[in-house]
Amino acid sequence: MDSERAAREQAVTDEVVASFGGAGSDRYRELMQSLVRHLHGFAREVRLTQGEWDAAIAFLTRVGHLTDERRQEFILLSDVLGLSMLTIGINMPASAGATESTVFGPFFVDGAPEIPLGGDLAQGAKGTPCYVSGQVRAVDGAPLAGVRVDAWQADEDGRYDIQYEGDRTQGRGWQRTGGDGGYRFWSVLPTAYPIPHDGPVGELLTAAGREPMRPAHLHFKVAAPGYRPLITHVFVDGDPYLRSDAVFGVKDSLIGRFTEHTGGTAPDGSPRHGRWTQVTLDLVLARQDSS
Amino acid sequence: MDSERAAREQAVTDEVVASFGGAGSDRYRELMQSLVRHLHGFAREVRLTQGEWDAAIAFLTRVGHLTDERRQEFILLSDVLGLSMLTIGINMPASAGATESTVFGPFFVDGAPEIPLGGDLAQGAKGTPCYVSGQVRAVDGAPLAGVRVDAWQADEDGRYDIQYEGDRTQGRGWQRTGGDGGYRFWSVLPTAYPIPHDGPVGELLTAAGREPMRPAHLHFKVAAPGYRPLITHVFVDGDPYLRSDAVFGVKDSLIGRFTEHTGGTAPDGSPRHGRWTQVTLDLVLARQDSS
Repeated sequence: MDSERAAREQAVTDEVVASFGGAGSDRYRELMQSLVRHLHGFAREVRLTQGEWDAAIAFLTRVGHLTDERRQEFILLSDVLGLSMLTIGINMPASAGATESTVFGPFFVDGAPEIPLGGDLAQGAKGTPCYVSGQVRAVDGAPLAGVRVDAWQADEDGRYDIQYEGDRTQGRGWQRTGGDGGYRFWSVLPTAYPIPHDGPVGELLTAAGREPMRPAHLHFKVAAPGYRPLITHVFVDGDPYLRSDAVFGVKDSLIGRFTEHTGGTAPDGSPRHGRWTQVTLDLVLARQDSS
Repeated sequence: MDSERAAREQAVTDEVVASFGGAGSDRYRELMQSLVRHLHGFAREVRLTQGEWDAAIAFLTRVGHLTDERRQEFILLSDVLGLSMLTIGINMPASAGATESTVFGPFFVDGAPEIPLGGDLAQGAKGTPCYVSGQVRAVDGAPLAGVRVDAWQADEDGRYDIQYEGDRTQGRGWQRTGGDGGYRFWSVLPTAYPIPHDGPVGELLTAAGREPMRPAHLHFKVAAPGYRPLITHVFVDGDPYLRSDAVFGVKDSLIGRFTEHTGGTAPDGSPRHGRWTQVTLDLVLARQDSS
């Protein structure tokens, strides 16, 4: 490329960067000027063609049109580009000992029911019963009582309740930890599933030669005053997709051992018939003011 | 930032870049790997917060929901970030003498009527009559006959036909050049106008302290077999927004002199009453195979 052309292209970037110079907020200016530099840097590096620009506009338009209250294709897009996990990493507290975070995903919904300690979160979701428990505590070991723990998951067929027709609420709910910081509920063993891939993000994965699969996991969201909110999963050890998660969400510390049982007595003292499983995950929170 | 954290963040980027290694198309792999590097580079440089990521997802969702057949908010977004003009620059033929390109914009629509040479493109659009003419020719000076020239523009109130309720078609049309490569039609004097700014792109401009205004212009689209398609404007000399176009579209070579007249005889020999204007813009095409 000749230097005159390079200079002309740089002048476009400089003009756009300068146009954000009058932003009312310093942070907004910083964000937009950096975004423009990196976005333009991409277009110049690949010598973006007009046809590719057209395709990108059409792609984003389809992402936007598919997105509604039940389907968040922009979050999926961020997830499969690794931007979600990178952002989580950037914002991770440095304090050692806290439970690691992972992607929020598009399947959380407000208004899930409260499940009493020891209660049933499955509410009819298909799958092998699974007893899930653990302790919410601070990095210094202090148990955190009365803390809200939200959990949500796919069923045995790899689908969340909101992916079914109708208004069922299954495999999601919240409870408050007891005096010992403990939480506990019955649910079902999660299974691996494909992220929704019948839309533009699915086409992206196909073009990339990538699988849409996520390894089996259960979502947690924990919010305690004075502590950093925690959004994480427990993954099922042995899942074949642990090393190829479509959204790059797996961290070794989040892989849980799900033990298998047949009959006998559950940890809550109830007699069991048939197959059931159990997993324990303690959720350790960093202080809000930790860097 | 400590080096362990930097290495952890780099590992996320490396993992995502590697995930595109199996793309079926070399070009797709190149595009996506570069996009991931630059997108991640942005997030790391600004230390993107979770709240900012949330805001970006919500912003793009609103852009998507506002976009329909009559409103293309993604093109507006690309325009105000200068990505549209940069892409045009990247794809500009090097051959000297060709008319420069500028943004396509969101207001072109298929199915505009054919206007005979010398006919009326305004079709009732409000404004001072304007006689628009010029020659379509090759860089070597050869006139190009029978070439389709599309033109579209806003009216005196700064609005395109599709921005009004109902189905009016005004201020847009196409014709084929005559044997001398000439095109000519009556329209109205364009006026400066704000790009649609009642949506998320408007909020972006407000946060940036930027005006939504575009200097007055008339759009052209010219397609001739064997030549590069040309998408351009003629801008009205003296417009106060020539140096602050919201979409960075102005090039000096595209600023036209619109002469003002009262009564008399028009270039097409018709007697005129009252105020009218005239502009000439030759449209010079580069060969398709020019680099």
